[in-house]
Amino acid sequence: MEKKDVLILMGSASDLPIMKKAAATFDEFGVGYDLHVLSVHRAPARAMEVAGGAREHGYRVVICGAGMAAHLAGAVAAKTTLPVIGVPIASGALAGVDALYATVQMPPGVPVATVAIGGARNAAVLAVQMLSLAEPRLAELLTGFKAKLSEEVLEVDRKVRQELGNA
Amino acid sequence: MEKKDVLILMGSASDLPIMKKAAATFDEFGVGYDLHVLSVHRAPARAMEVAGGAREHGYRVVICGAGMAAHLAGAVAAKTTLPVIGVPIASGALAGVDALYATVQMPPGVPVATVAIGGARNAAVLAVQMLSLAEPRLAELLTGFKAKLSEEVLEVDRKVRQELGNA
Amino acid sequence: MEKKDVLILMGSASDLPIMKKAAATFDEFGVGYDLHVLSVHRAPARAMEVAGGAREHGYRVVICGAGMAAHLAGAVAAKTTLPVIGVPIASGALAGVDALYATVQMPPGVPVATVAIGGARNAAVLAVQMLSLAEPRLAELLTGFKAKLSEEVLEVDRKVRQELGNA
Amino acid sequence: MEKKDVLILMGSASDLPIMKKAAATFDEFGVGYDLHVLSVHRAPARAMEVAGGAREHGYRVVICGAGMAAHLAGAVAAKTTLPVIGVPIASGALAGVDALYATVQMPPGVPVATVAIGGARNAAVLAVQMLSLAEPRLAELLTGFKAKLSEEVLEVDRKVRQELGNA
Amino acid sequence: MEKKDVLILMGSASDLPIMKKAAATFDEFGVGYDLHVLSVHRAPARAMEVAGGAREHGYRVVICGAGMAAHLAGAVAAKTTLPVIGVPIASGALAGVDALYATVQMPPGVPVATVAIGGARNAAVLAVQMLSLAEPRLAELLTGFKAKLSEEVLEVDRKVRQELGNA
Amino acid sequence: MEKKDVLILMGSASDLPIMKKAAATFDEFGVGYDLHVLSVHRAPARAMEVAGGAREHGYRVVICGAGMAAHLAGAVAAKTTLPVIGVPIASGALAGVDALYATVQMPPGVPVATVAIGGARNAAVLAVQMLSLAEPRLAELLTGFKAKLSEEVLEVDRKVRQELGNA
Amino acid sequence: MEKKDVLILMGSASDLPIMKKAAATFDEFGVGYDLHVLSVHRAPARAMEVAGGAREHGYRVVICGAGMAAHLAGAVAAKTTLPVIGVPIASGALAGVDALYATVQMPPGVPVATVAIGGARNAAVLAVQMLSLAEPRLAELLTGFKAKLSEEVLEVDRKVRQELGNA
Amino acid sequence: MEKKDVLILMGSASDLPIMKKAAATFDEFGVGYDLHVLSVHRAPARAMEVAGGAREHGYRVVICGAGMAAHLAGAVAAKTTLPVIGVPIASGALAGVDALYATVQMPPGVPVATVAIGGARNAAVLAVQMLSLAEPRLAELLTGFKAKLSEEVLEVDRKVRQELGNA
Repeated sequence: MEKKDVLILMGSASDLPIMKKAAATFDEFGVGYDLHVLSVHRAPARAMEVAGGAREHGYRVVICGAGMAAHLAGAVAAKTTLPVIGVPIASGALAGVDALYATVQMPPGVPVATVAIGGARNAAVLAVQMLSLAEPRLAELLTGFKAKLSEEVLEVDRKVRQELGNA
Repeated sequence: MEKKDVLILMGSASDLPIMKKAAATFDEFGVGYDLHVLSVHRAPARAMEVAGGAREHGYRVVICGAGMAAHLAGAVAAKTTLPVIGVPIASGALAGVDALYATVQMPPGVPVATVAIGGARNAAVLAVQMLSLAEPRLAELLTGFKAKLSEEVLEVDRKVRQELGNA
Repeated sequence: MEKKDVLILMGSASDLPIMKKAAATFDEFGVGYDLHVLSVHRAPARAMEVAGGAREHGYRVVICGAGMAAHLAGAVAAKTTLPVIGVPIASGALAGVDALYATVQMPPGVPVATVAIGGARNAAVLAVQMLSLAEPRLAELLTGFKAKLSEEVLEVDRKVRQELGNA
Repeated sequence: MEKKDVLILMGSASDLPIMKKAAATFDEFGVGYDLHVLSVHRAPARAMEVAGGAREHGYRVVICGAGMAAHLAGAVAAKTTLPVIGVPIASGALAGVDALYATVQMPPGVPVATVAIGGARNAAVLAVQMLSLAEPRLAELLTGFKAKLSEEVLEVDRKVRQELGNA
Repeated sequence: MEKKDVLILMGSASDLPIMKKAAATFDEFGVGYDLHVLSVHRAPARAMEVAGGAREHGYRVVICGAGMAAHLAGAVAAKTTLPVIGVPIASGALAGVDALYATVQMPPGVPVATVAIGGARNAAVLAVQMLSLAEPRLAELLTGFKAKLSEEVLEVDRKVRQELGNA
Repeated sequence: MEKKDVLILMGSASDLPIMKKAAATFDEFGVGYDLHVLSVHRAPARAMEVAGGAREHGYRVVICGAGMAAHLAGAVAAKTTLPVIGVPIASGALAGVDALYATVQMPPGVPVATVAIGGARNAAVLAVQMLSLAEPRLAELLTGFKAKLSEEVLEVDRKVRQELGNA
Repeated sequence: MEKKDVLILMGSASDLPIMKKAAATFDEFGVGYDLHVLSVHRAPARAMEVAGGAREHGYRVVICGAGMAAHLAGAVAAKTTLPVIGVPIASGALAGVDALYATVQMPPGVPVATVAIGGARNAAVLAVQMLSLAEPRLAELLTGFKAKLSEEVLEVDRKVRQELGNA
Repeated sequence: MEKKDVLILMGSASDLPIMKKAAATFDEFGVGYDLHVLSVHRAPARAMEVAGGAREHGYRVVICGAGMAAHLAGAVAAKTTLPVIGVPIASGALAGVDALYATVQMPPGVPVATVAIGGARNAAVLAVQMLSLAEPRLAELLTGFKAKLSEEVLEVDRKVRQELGNA
């Protein structure tokens, strides 16, 4: 049975297209994950139960994506000692500034590791970086990942310069 | 034994100077209240217990004051069907905009009745308005309260005009 | 003849698609309402007449939706001792931040219970919560409503996990 | 008996230190004015009575200073066809942005001529400019006022350069 | 030969669709106007010449529409003692907040009467209000205009209520 | 020789009063750390050298505090595969919003785990949570830390209620 | 072989449509340039190498376009004593405000000459102005450029007035 | 007679404490400058005269500091082909955001090289970088300046570490 290191939570099914980028990133790194649509506002008991049992269940990192008055990550961080990563999601009139502030401005003692608005891919990379502290395999993969990021930029540079006759 | 209609909650003792204005307003109207410092982030189980039992305990309205990523009102609203009033409190670098957005931008189904940043007195007036739907005594007091508000402004106007020789 | 507990006001016919969500929510709860397009800026006398007579007319809660320099809720709150709920509506260049600030930042003595930008459904749920203080029937319906909110999230969770093969 | 061309209104006595700058400017230009502390939220009937009778009373311009959810100027503009000038006043956590948006973002048909946050002196200059359309005496005074503004800047320039040895 | 009371300026031809609403409003009131595309940044000499000669030319009010770092209204106000009305125009990434701040936040002595972002119609109504100080014909038209605004809202109210079966 | 798991960096000596809270937190948990004042803008070569060698040097987490156009955390994240935690620091006219945006809005592939403006204590708690994935000793300490947070709130609640005679 | 005075850098190929406007402007002025897609976050070593060698390579001005937590211009400015021009680019939920703050709010000693969000054409004009300090040919071209800007506005004015029958 | 390469302008004497930092920086580099208090709003003719004659007068760069609706830099840029550097200055309720937007958001063809709010020292460093394109002496000084910036940070790092016993 596959080990599932990461618990991916989101406040609504409408967050799924963004949060799937986290799942896809874990697939690249061979990191197992579970994914739930949970709402700290509409189904708080279930949310608290899942969050409260996360460490015991064997998860090692929790990622929470939510929009508007985005309380999910903070509420989960209140119930677990695992690192919690928050992904503010743009939704409604305030375009994600509300979710960013509601996710990042946590009180002392209960941090949420916040990434960019809509930054689900980075949430997953950050989770892999955390897991790499205990798994040398992931540390190596991250070195390769970083090298590939760099190569891709250099390759884009070459292409753009060729197209423009600037090379 | 005094009936306690309102439950006043705040996220930190530093919110007390502001939230006391709600208490003072209830004293003016002869409305009983309980007051707790609760933290949905630092003591979530206790916060959820108090919120979840609010209606059964006999409270009829809940007021929640909190700053920064102000989740208290929303978390309480998730656990009770009583009306929940949120008071965003200015604290830290963002001066209350974070608390305002985190309090007011709730998802469908779980409203928080949000008042102005630091508006604890208005939270209490709003609570009295809600209670007045079932208590004619309060409806009458509100009529007097409104008349007095008006008289005070007219009196200020007279004084200012006299001082300026404009009357 | 049907009892009409709620008065729904809006500043312009263009607010109707949003404010209809409040009406639909009252239909779900079997709560009677009246609905008016009123403008405190373009037809102030009529707006003040309707607001001033709201309690005598038998309404118990007023909901006001308006955009831009959204004065409707505040002006109504100035004329009645009933609880007034404000729905800021996104319209024009500032996308609802103007309406949010103009609705929520009321002076001491005259509260407006503000919900999220565009949050007409929550305005109605909040009104039902207020009415439930005097109507046990609504308190029961709210318990069912909350349970259903929770079940829906759990059902969405099951579906999403099945689709992703994560269940 | 002195002709009073301008009606200066403010929402609270705490706005007086700022709004006195408007009064002082009218004294410079020999323009008569009345000044009232009025509150559209706390004493709406009186505010509407004063605003509604402004043109008949002989006023020609109305200036309104208010903070937070600053409705005063808009409410007055709803009740008179005189030009209404709004002075947003910084007060509370949002430091005047709330008052600016609530004053300037008026709907079509009901303009408020908005000046800078705290710009009571400019409100008075603007009023004099309006009055100058019918009073050649004021047009001449404005020409002198503008020349003096310019001379003062040139004089400051000379002094600063002398002090710095840059002249 | 027609008397032209108002000078309508705009910073770019792209502002024309918005500024035409001002022109249309003047047509309704029978107020003559001239219209120019002028740029204080790209053709400053011409802009200053037109602004500097505005009073002598017989104009009585100037309206300026501009976007981004909207300097046009302020620059014109620096060169004339006529009242200057500024229309901030939404354009580019900041959606008009830049233009609003650049138009309204003028220093003491040089006011710009700022209306809502995109509020060209209100700029014209405000200009008519100013002109009405010297022209009783316009004061009367404004009374009719205000009555019509009110009737239109009442008519919309009737229609909406009929459609919804709420009348 | 003490093992140093965390590297604390800050952009300027003026950030030290805030960043010392991170150091104090590590002292509570018995976690070793190094601390440097480094500037990616004023001493980029040194900053890149320290960041680039962080994993090899044996550090396991990097914390970066910086104000204004806060590039430090992002620049370090570009050079290491270790998890990087960013602390936006309020400094200058924009009061930390600039630092928050410059820290959190990182592009895909290079995350910075951002905490609240000025949230150095939470940066350290987050680092301990990450380290706890490989050190059971820290996981246990975190459980105690969380219990103590909760107890402290309950104790504050008791005290406040006693003082107010509400207990 | 053509002299290349300007180095145009951008953080991503998606910035190319905007940054091409800089290139087109240099073509108008006959100024040579090189263009690279470089990422200080994804390919920092290459970015630092290019920036560090810019003066030696013979470039005289560097232009950097980037979005979100836009560090490119600041990082380049840290590595060269050439003037660096920053173009904030609107991208993602915050629509360029993040990029503006991250580009302009640089610490003392390391300036970035920031232009409007998306203002790549102005970045190029600014670069030509800088180059004109040493090249009289460019100073003359700029005089012509300015005259043409002015003529174009006057021509637009004529056309618009003709179409409206206002000429 | 000393050559004066830079013209430092500011909109008000209250900007002098900030703009003196630019002057002090030029003293360090041995760059001559003139300094004027000029106001594009209060003394526009003089401002335009100085700006329009700047290149002929022998200046090579213009620096403009201004607050609120900061038009000075833009107005100067409209009248000269020299590079113009804008320093937004925090003043009044909006704390410099207004000045930043009014300075940086210039239309195509008329750039202002904007530095941080209050960033007068950086304005001067940027001017020296521009002048260095034609003066090898300044290019050398800038290399030394950059080295010193770096050494200062390293020295601060040593001191801080010694004080904390971390070295």
